[in-house]
Amino acid sequence: MDKKMIDYTLYLVTDRELMSCDTIEESVERAIAGGASVVQLREKNATSREFYELAVRVKKITAPRGVPLIINDRIDICLAADTNGVHLGQKDIPCDIARRILGSEKIIGVSAATPEEAAKAERDGADYLGVGAVFSTSTKTDTRPVTPEIIRGIRAAVTIPFVVIGGINSENIETLKGLGINGAAVVSAVVAQPDIETAARTMRAAVEKIK
Amino acid sequence: MDKKMIDYTLYLVTDRELMSCDTIEESVERAIAGGASVVQLREKNATSREFYELAVRVKKITAPRGVPLIINDRIDICLAADTNGVHLGQKDIPCDIARRILGSEKIIGVSAATPEEAAKAERDGADYLGVGAVFSTSTKTDTRPVTPEIIRGIRAAVTIPFVVIGGINSENIETLKGLGINGAAVVSAVVAQPDIETAARTMRAAVEKIK
Repeated sequence: MDKKMIDYTLYLVTDRELMSCDTIEESVERAIAGGASVVQLREKNATSREFYELAVRVKKITAPRGVPLIINDRIDICLAADTNGVHLGQKDIPCDIARRILGSEKIIGVSAATPEEAAKAERDGADYLGVGAVFSTSTKTDTRPVTPEIIRGIRAAVTIPFVVIGGINSENIETLKGLGINGAAVVSAVVAQPDIETAARTMRAAVEKIK
Repeated sequence: MDKKMIDYTLYLVTDRELMSCDTIEESVERAIAGGASVVQLREKNATSREFYELAVRVKKITAPRGVPLIINDRIDICLAADTNGVHLGQKDIPCDIARRILGSEKIIGVSAATPEEAAKAERDGADYLGVGAVFSTSTKTDTRPVTPEIIRGIRAAVTIPFVVIGGINSENIETLKGLGINGAAVVSAVVAQPDIETAARTMRAAVEKIK
């Protein structure tokens, strides 16, 4: 996979608790059918074996469709299932250490809420950033508010692409137009909706309008 | 570190909740002073960053003393902090996958409660086994009882060393004499005692008598 060619427009983050269907695999398949262009698996309560086996199963859906599969936090799961990369929060293993372990081919994303965190992530080898939370969200409770001003500061601070994350839906994203974002990471706006494929399609169209 | 030369006699497993002193580092330092010959860091609630930073700090204690530092479950923490190895339960990443990721130099231990699990772990590249729970224990609640008969079956099934684990103290270990065990893994019998160094010394003497 050519990392420079990745389409970050609609970045799906899975959530077992919120999803409207029975399996993570089903939610991923439907979201991709609706236009999700990157998939991040986030599992906070699974055993390592469960997370590994899930990643192997989901890769069978993402790989044939050319959609990068990113693992939240767990570098070992990425290596074990040979997925495309990892996403690291500020409480996860530091990006420079992760880059040393994973080599140059794997995608590494880093969560950043300030221009300083963003610039450090780029220096440490990140391929993209997750910037947020841009709106209030029920998915994560430990987030800081990231204003349009901060987003502009982050855009000025780095050359790598970034997606915004946090409480985004197809309506409120309009307020983020003109800020230079490369895509939107969504959880409940897609996987919690009754029709995941349609929700993804609606969300993707909304992101394309403001990019 | 020559893996064949490792002394498994007193295998310390850390426990933040049970320890009698203020820091994991202090409990490890005192246990080694009392004769602990392997240290396993087990952290079930830490963030990846916290676990990584703890491993880096504890390695500064174990490495100069020639004591192998093993990480419970998390292959990524082992790689990030460059510790000596990992210990994998049956709910963790499979041993053969872990071996592929870690290469031949790192130590891999696997939990086994039956001769079948033990034989599979050896085939899959394990360097040692953790066999238990041999006694009832408050540390883990999801364990199956491993009888002396099962221990004999495991000893017959594998050539690699194994430590017994689960509710072991310096008195009840006497009932495990003559079973071919290579060491005892202890949590509360050492780290929960008021004087960790003395508890380790007492425990080590008890293990040496039954080996």
